[in-house]
Amino acid sequence: MTNTVNNGGDIYDRRESEARSYCRGFPTTFTAARGSELTDESGRRYIDFLAGCSSLNYGHNDPDMKAALIEHIAGDGLAHGLDLHTDAKAAFLRAFETHILKPRGMDHRLMFTGPTGTNAIEAAMKLARKSTGRSNIVAFTNGFHGVSMGALAATGNGYHRGGAGTDLGGGITRLPFDGYMDGFDSADLLEQMLTDNSSGLDAPAAIMLETVQGEGGLNAASPEWVARIARLAREHGALLIIDDIQAGCGRTGGFFSFEGMGFTPDIITMAKSVSGFGLPLALVLVRPEHDVMGPAEHNGTFRGNNHAFVTARIAIEKFWADDSFQRSVEARAKVVEDGLQKLAAMIPGARLKGRGMMRGVDVGSGQLAGDICGQAFENGLIIETSGPEDEVVKILAPLTTPDTVLRKGIDILLDAARTTIDGNQIAAE
Amino acid sequence: MTNTVNNGGDIYDRRESEARSYCRGFPTTFTAARGSELTDESGRRYIDFLAGCSSLNYGHNDPDMKAALIEHIAGDGLAHGLDLHTDAKAAFLRAFETHILKPRGMDHRLMFTGPTGTNAIEAAMKLARKSTGRSNIVAFTNGFHGVSMGALAATGNGYHRGGAGTDLGGGITRLPFDGYMDGFDSADLLEQMLTDNSSGLDAPAAIMLETVQGEGGLNAASPEWVARIARLAREHGALLIIDDIQAGCGRTGGFFSFEGMGFTPDIITMAKSVSGFGLPLALVLVRPEHDVMGPAEHNGTFRGNNHAFVTARIAIEKFWADDSFQRSVEARAKVVEDGLQKLAAMIPGARLKGRGMMRGVDVGSGQLAGDICGQAFENGLIIETSGPEDEVVKILAPLTTPDTVLRKGIDILLDAARTTIDGNQIAAE
Amino acid sequence: MTNTVNNGGDIYDRRESEARSYCRGFPTTFTAARGSELTDESGRRYIDFLAGCSSLNYGHNDPDMKAALIEHIAGDGLAHGLDLHTDAKAAFLRAFETHILKPRGMDHRLMFTGPTGTNAIEAAMKLARKSTGRSNIVAFTNGFHGVSMGALAATGNGYHRGGAGTDLGGGITRLPFDGYMDGFDSADLLEQMLTDNSSGLDAPAAIMLETVQGEGGLNAASPEWVARIARLAREHGALLIIDDIQAGCGRTGGFFSFEGMGFTPDIITMAKSVSGFGLPLALVLVRPEHDVMGPAEHNGTFRGNNHAFVTARIAIEKFWADDSFQRSVEARAKVVEDGLQKLAAMIPGARLKGRGMMRGVDVGSGQLAGDICGQAFENGLIIETSGPEDEVVKILAPLTTPDTVLRKGIDILLDAARTTIDGNQIAAE
Amino acid sequence: MTNTVNNGGDIYDRRESEARSYCRGFPTTFTAARGSELTDESGRRYIDFLAGCSSLNYGHNDPDMKAALIEHIAGDGLAHGLDLHTDAKAAFLRAFETHILKPRGMDHRLMFTGPTGTNAIEAAMKLARKSTGRSNIVAFTNGFHGVSMGALAATGNGYHRGGAGTDLGGGITRLPFDGYMDGFDSADLLEQMLTDNSSGLDAPAAIMLETVQGEGGLNAASPEWVARIARLAREHGALLIIDDIQAGCGRTGGFFSFEGMGFTPDIITMAKSVSGFGLPLALVLVRPEHDVMGPAEHNGTFRGNNHAFVTARIAIEKFWADDSFQRSVEARAKVVEDGLQKLAAMIPGARLKGRGMMRGVDVGSGQLAGDICGQAFENGLIIETSGPEDEVVKILAPLTTPDTVLRKGIDILLDAARTTIDGNQIAAE
Repeated sequence: MTNTVNNGGDIYDRRESEARSYCRGFPTTFTAARGSELTDESGRRYIDFLAGCSSLNYGHNDPDMKAALIEHIAGDGLAHGLDLHTDAKAAFLRAFETHILKPRGMDHRLMFTGPTGTNAIEAAMKLARKSTGRSNIVAFTNGFHGVSMGALAATGNGYHRGGAGTDLGGGITRLPFDGYMDGFDSADLLEQMLTDNSSGLDAPAAIMLETVQGEGGLNAASPEWVARIARLAREHGALLIIDDIQAGCGRTGGFFSFEGMGFTPDIITMAKSVSGFGLPLALVLVRPEHDVMGPAEHNGTFRGNNHAFVTARIAIEKFWADDSFQRSVEARAKVVEDGLQKLAAMIPGARLKGRGMMRGVDVGSGQLAGDICGQAFENGLIIETSGPEDEVVKILAPLTTPDTVLRKGIDILLDAARTTIDGNQIAAE
Repeated sequence: MTNTVNNGGDIYDRRESEARSYCRGFPTTFTAARGSELTDESGRRYIDFLAGCSSLNYGHNDPDMKAALIEHIAGDGLAHGLDLHTDAKAAFLRAFETHILKPRGMDHRLMFTGPTGTNAIEAAMKLARKSTGRSNIVAFTNGFHGVSMGALAATGNGYHRGGAGTDLGGGITRLPFDGYMDGFDSADLLEQMLTDNSSGLDAPAAIMLETVQGEGGLNAASPEWVARIARLAREHGALLIIDDIQAGCGRTGGFFSFEGMGFTPDIITMAKSVSGFGLPLALVLVRPEHDVMGPAEHNGTFRGNNHAFVTARIAIEKFWADDSFQRSVEARAKVVEDGLQKLAAMIPGARLKGRGMMRGVDVGSGQLAGDICGQAFENGLIIETSGPEDEVVKILAPLTTPDTVLRKGIDILLDAARTTIDGNQIAAE
Repeated sequence: MTNTVNNGGDIYDRRESEARSYCRGFPTTFTAARGSELTDESGRRYIDFLAGCSSLNYGHNDPDMKAALIEHIAGDGLAHGLDLHTDAKAAFLRAFETHILKPRGMDHRLMFTGPTGTNAIEAAMKLARKSTGRSNIVAFTNGFHGVSMGALAATGNGYHRGGAGTDLGGGITRLPFDGYMDGFDSADLLEQMLTDNSSGLDAPAAIMLETVQGEGGLNAASPEWVARIARLAREHGALLIIDDIQAGCGRTGGFFSFEGMGFTPDIITMAKSVSGFGLPLALVLVRPEHDVMGPAEHNGTFRGNNHAFVTARIAIEKFWADDSFQRSVEARAKVVEDGLQKLAAMIPGARLKGRGMMRGVDVGSGQLAGDICGQAFENGLIIETSGPEDEVVKILAPLTTPDTVLRKGIDILLDAARTTIDGNQIAAE
Repeated sequence: MTNTVNNGGDIYDRRESEARSYCRGFPTTFTAARGSELTDESGRRYIDFLAGCSSLNYGHNDPDMKAALIEHIAGDGLAHGLDLHTDAKAAFLRAFETHILKPRGMDHRLMFTGPTGTNAIEAAMKLARKSTGRSNIVAFTNGFHGVSMGALAATGNGYHRGGAGTDLGGGITRLPFDGYMDGFDSADLLEQMLTDNSSGLDAPAAIMLETVQGEGGLNAASPEWVARIARLAREHGALLIIDDIQAGCGRTGGFFSFEGMGFTPDIITMAKSVSGFGLPLALVLVRPEHDVMGPAEHNGTFRGNNHAFVTARIAIEKFWADDSFQRSVEARAKVVEDGLQKLAAMIPGARLKGRGMMRGVDVGSGQLAGDICGQAFENGLIIETSGPEDEVVKILAPLTTPDTVLRKGIDILLDAARTTIDGNQIAAE
């Protein structure tokens, strides 16, 4: 590294808000990225097991998307089109219908919200409330749905909630997620409260959940639990909202995280990897009977990002036209699982968490998890933590990561863990 | 036009949410855009007086930004970088500091939120509340700040408010904007209520306003009124938030809409044209003493869109390194004003509204305004309405629109108005 | 008894909450009361110009009510009957129907809530919301409706609002009361906001007001303004709630404060003097079409206080069977007005406020008003202040106060004012 | 009097709100009451197992209280005194200190709120929020705290919640009460959520509960569970509010329902039987360090009902100067328990519920419970149901009920149950 200052340096201290975050754990300036690797200004290369928090499921700068995007721009294709019809949008819609919705028998419509996950969540909550005429939404412990006020009310994390600087108001009932306490099925509690007229649980407009809680610590609900929640929602006139922003787009294997669980959600929120290229794009899938927003009733200047439509279409056509990608993800998931089991075996009490390519190890403390990630970065691996106390070391590698790179990254992680644990033991002696 | 169906067609009816809006008024499929013109799939060209609702202040596909963006992509520059340091971000920050902040003596920091205006507003409201320890925010009649729950509570429009499907909770006190009622200075009322301990106005965390209300009907506050509000905010311990999402980036002449009014806001929200190219990017400018969010306390996967940093930097360097652009905007604004005065003169009771290149005519009814815009579209002009009843025909042309194109667009508008008015008279006879 | 300590003394400091209030300004222990006079433990007598804040409009221990109550108790009449039918309740209802409702052509029903004003307000707000299906209630600057959470949200006073220790939530839009600012008719603003779809004023369930704001500083709305508000409410589908808790029961002349204004409210709240004897009783008068609470949907153990029904019936029959009492009140009101004009004349800038027997003088500062009241107490008069800064010396004497007592009380007040002003001048020299 | 119409009759239909309730189940007009018996206008006598919902723990018209009250009134004692010092208040405070607080080592102060339970709850919630600076209050399934907006938000019952006609806002987290689900200790869940920073449970100002949920169905928490909740509250900086409005004043044996559980609440709310005579009186007991309301910051015209002070003092001196009353209650509770066990034995699946003299039987359906109570009324017994589906036949007899009367009432109840069950069986055959 020659000189951070030249290519950024104290401009961040001087002019970027204290809210900046990842740059604190990975203190260098990145200049290029391809596939599963990042390069910094000194030319050093890093394996990326963070992948934009699952926003880069197909890796950085996928060559096919890149080519199509450059062609679009070079040809003066629209960048910004509000919600006008454009050729790029039409092509994306057709691909999404052909390869995603039709094969799964889904009649959902696509609502393009502002291109962030939290916008999609806000729209989903509004749709559910407007469609049902009810206000209350059931959300779960450790759920993370975003930090705008509506989504934040549904988010469990106290640090983020505190950022509101005010009460988050009503409209949310919080219940325990699957596995929150041993020997207790929280669906039993939900059912009891839904059935008991005096439980204080106002009839819900929706029940909203992530099948695997990403920020909450890679808590994977069992398919049976999720299916039961879906059934309870239906029985009690509530919509089921699956927040697939982090767990969708192949992260857990299928395009949607709930595939094979035996139900279809009323509303699905997507963002992160939906553009395929890391470009901002979000969408809400909603069944026609709940597609109740009038024209522009939920709007936003950047709904429908045409550059993102171009890459998103390629992503659909390239990865989801048949099941080969899904099968390759499942194979890679096994590699990740094997590696993380080795990590868990190093640390007394550590637990493997998550599902598919959304896995991690609860190492018991945020301090230890952070130290391991810090050591890994020294050795050329970008990897992060999650969980209420940042106690889970998580792997969110691109789903396209070649086996050799995946194994190399895991080796760096295991080495980092060993070094950290050894260092701690020496320090303790 | 050969066949809408081929390039989109019923895919929209079948699969796009009813929330879609602009496409209903401009029912064609656009395929290319350059400067102030759009082209549809049949090759027809349209003059664009909508400009992405002021998101394309520098026109479509500006050649310099386009070249830089293609170069960035071709070189595997990062697309998505969370809030990691990147060369593109550093270069943008330096340009923004050099050409925008320093010359105006501003010590503000930039907070990159999710890349939509409503995200920036949510962050601004949270900053103000967290920094002051107060909850209440004063917002104004006809203000429009976005449709996520926090921003929507501050938004006046009943149609958008209704989309929430629930009460929007507390935390907002609504007061009349400048000029809301004849013979009444609403700043007097604000002062009285701030001073009177029994007014029911809880001590505000912030007073938030647009200097020109875009969606609210191009209501331009007088500089004296805004300055008095700024003074009242300071005297009563409230932060002043200027929402410059639509009025900023040169739309009213200067980079900020409040320049020359004699105060500096504590917090400024920007989005729309800040990327210069129509790419999603939003930012919150906040004085260091109110930069109180901890790391990732307000976060979002798409904060910091690197493609947008590339184009935003070019936009700053190309248009804001000296005052030539601002002067050219002022000249074009005169052309627009002259044209709209002609429009106003055609319609009894019509009033010219707005400021700078954010102008319109209140034609007295949403029906008439809509008919004029519909007629203009037939003649190759894309132009929209705003205001509580959509009664204002507004021109939001790119600030870079060449004089000939600007005049041609205005001529189409005036012709459309004449045709519409004549048609109405015939119908009435 | 010669010693305060024996009959109370430090028991208050030791065991009564700091929330105690009037006892601080009138620091003695009272042992008996009759008509317009109180007696303390030392045998000293005081003229009572406070009258339980208008809860003792017919004076203390009215002999007829007293006799009936003793007879009721002695005969083992019910004290507590929940909302069971009792002879005492039936007799009260018949008297109220015969002497109050029928002569005024009112078809209202009586809802007995918990026997406090704030309970009546809570019920009224709930009725309006349930009946209209709307949430928002318009309340006014300086309005005071109670301190339970629903009523407190509608109350303007910042000191009381602060007692909530939390935000008071949504559901209230605050607008300026009549005369809040010179040269500005706040009904114009209300009408504009009700008509303007983008004003941010959500369609109201109710507009709620006191015709004379008691705690807010004896602000008397003009009959024309109130009538216009009533008309606006009707035109916009909102119920009109008149909070007659302090201004009703003859305080302004008629049984209701709005008599002769040309409208009938949808809902009227009453408490304070409705029992006639100072016993807790509250009621909500509601038109049959808005009588929408199901059985016990709004309940409370003490709704329907049978002792209070006994005295309330006597009060109705004794004072409201013909117009002689009302005429006598009007005569006394003239005496009060004359007296207060003398007070106002002593103090530069002082203003006479209020209406009927609910009058006061704004002396310009809470300090001066408090000093005058303190001096008056020294001289045997109990009199209090109101207003946002406690700047109004108010007379709320029993409506039955004999002329000689009334004049004697006024003389004490004027003497106290003179002494205070002279003292201040000497101090200033 | 032989005719209901004469003494009430259609006056109720014509003029009393539909919210009236108990009178529907006991459709006669009562004219006198003494001890545990009521008399109606036809001279018929009824045993009272409802006792004003536990507001008449010492029976109707206790002769000592009655004598003292008549003496007070006859001597022109104050009826209404705002919160002025009076001899009646001082005497009550001294008695309460001497016989209740001192023997239990309690340093609490008494705050007199408006004389209803819901007012006391509102004050308690405000005290907790103001004292801690936090907003959230933990309340429990099936809790009932009142129907003003603050209290109603904490109340679980859906029917009552629906009466608000609007969302009840934020500020409450609802958790399962003790025994809500088999095989699950809800204190475990509370502890987990308090400890987990990402549970979505905002740090609570208070945890509020009834030790026996009266309206919720006579759910008696175990002393161990309540003690653990008390401990969790203390450990997490939350105040413990015990709502003893229904369970206090001897209803469960001791003066407070939590005696002997090993903790002292920070705040206790009392109403119902605190006046002893059925007169409206409420109070909040608060530890000095949380006595944070300023003068009149929480106020109300009827705080401090002097008639009620007179009877409340007698009640304290007569029943609580030694432990003989408590022992007699415990003996009567055994009689009630024995009787209800017989009732439970008649009905398959029926369960005995409650504690002390606050007992009932869950008969499995509201229909059956209602039929039994209706039949009992035919036979001269006033008895009511509770629970979310009104499925619990409850006995809330005066604590002073003589054994013979108690046994006679129980016999009527058992007969009524037999008749009802037999009738149902015949109907089913």
